Amino acid sequence: MKPIIITTAITGAVPKKQDNPAVPISPAEQIESTHAAYEAGSALVHIHVRDAQENPSSSPELFAAVQEGVKKHCPGMIIQFSTGGRGREASQRGASLYLKPDMASLTTGSVNFPRQIYENAPDFIETLCKEMLTYRIKPEIEVFDAAMLYNAVELVKRGLILEPLHVQFVMGVQNAIPVRRSLLEFLLSELKEISPTATWSALGMARHQLEVNRWCLELGGHTRT
Amino acid sequence: MKPIIITTAITGAVPKKQDNPAVPISPAEQIESTHAAYEAGSALVHIHVRDAQENPSSSPELFAAVQEGVKKHCPGMIIQFSTGGRGREASQRGASLYLKPDMASLTTGSVNFPRQIYENAPDFIETLCKEMLTYRIKPEIEVFDAAMLYNAVELVKRGLILEPLHVQFVMGVQNAIPVRRSLLEFLLSELKEISPTATWSALGMARHQLEVNRWCLELGGHTRT
Ligand SMILES: [Zn+2]
Ligand SMILES: [Zn+2]
Ligand SMILES: [Zn+2]
Ligand SMILES: [Zn+2]
Repeated sequence: MKPIIITTAITGAVPKKQDNPAVPISPAEQIESTHAAYEAGSALVHIHVRDAQENPSSSPELFAAVQEGVKKHCPGMIIQFSTGGRGREASQRGASLYLKPDMASLTTGSVNFPRQIYENAPDFIETLCKEMLTYRIKPEIEVFDAAMLYNAVELVKRGLILEPLHVQFVMGVQNAIPVRRSLLEFLLSELKEISPTATWSALGMARHQLEVNRWCLELGGHTRT
Repeated sequence: MKPIIITTAITGAVPKKQDNPAVPISPAEQIESTHAAYEAGSALVHIHVRDAQENPSSSPELFAAVQEGVKKHCPGMIIQFSTGGRGREASQRGASLYLKPDMASLTTGSVNFPRQIYENAPDFIETLCKEMLTYRIKPEIEVFDAAMLYNAVELVKRGLILEPLHVQFVMGVQNAIPVRRSLLEFLLSELKEISPTATWSALGMARHQLEVNRWCLELGGHTRT
């Protein structure tokens, strides 16, 4: 059996303390949460940071603080920064890449979210790719819809992403791809054909998390908690 | 063999006279082009209109002129208005629906186009659905990416679209779904499962047009020229 990388997303873009008092918000809280996940076997941390009002932030100071703490408390853990959009200015979403995290998320297209468009215009994606090449950051391709998978392979052909690809299928965000095993299996068969060296994982929103984790194990992917 | 509806898109959103002198721009030219397609057996016309500078327009006067001419020259032909986006203000894209065309296009999500985001935010889609219900216009669901198919079925569940659905798969626009038979077959198997009464057709951009038309015939769909 090949080793499985268990990823931890300590803080997403949405929940606040009032929704869940356990959600880690400050860098110190995020570092301690990550440490606990590391002790429990997680090998990769996906980082979103929050400002003093608990809103999603792009502040390089906050990313740097969490990065430094994780490096110290969790030696060898893979650090991945989010370049995701909710509540963040497009021009700021790549502002922390100069800190050279091991990986960063990269959404290779646009799609609807529950109430707005998750905007990743072609030139914006190209800019993030170039930054990641400059700082030797491996992108995690976030696939919220099918075209994003094919777009990632086009970016490889254009020299903007290096192989092997690592793809994360994100299922169950309202208005993006739903949680359907037939769909995951299809996307995996396409991935195998268009990028045979790729690795992948998948995640299901909220109540679908465990179900999608199980599919990942059954279908040979990595998993995220 | 069931009857096949051959659709004609007389004028798209992009080419101008300088690209192709044969492209019909004025209402009179569009009506005559449609008449020729009707004589050749086309049963449905998909209408974009252009202003005096040949740019995509939302003018109800232009839509009304083409609609009136087609009704007169092509009795029984199904008239479909585009609510598509390129070069048109969102607030104007549904401005001609009060003219009660038989059908109108409806893109049930957002996706990247070659250079920009094709924006169809959730509340905008909902507004178009309500207008189409009011004027008893049947939507043609334009599927540029997989999530749009599932979104259409969600809109049915919310009472915003009436069944049976008619779906158009649009393949080969750069950054949206590519021209791949495996993908079309998968989307059709999903459609059959989530909306068994749906009808469909598919179109491939430019040089892929004939190939996708052939797939449509082989897989039991309608076709567009
Ligand atoms: Zn610690
Ligand atoms: Zn994230
Ligand atoms: Zn005529
Ligand atoms: Zn059109």
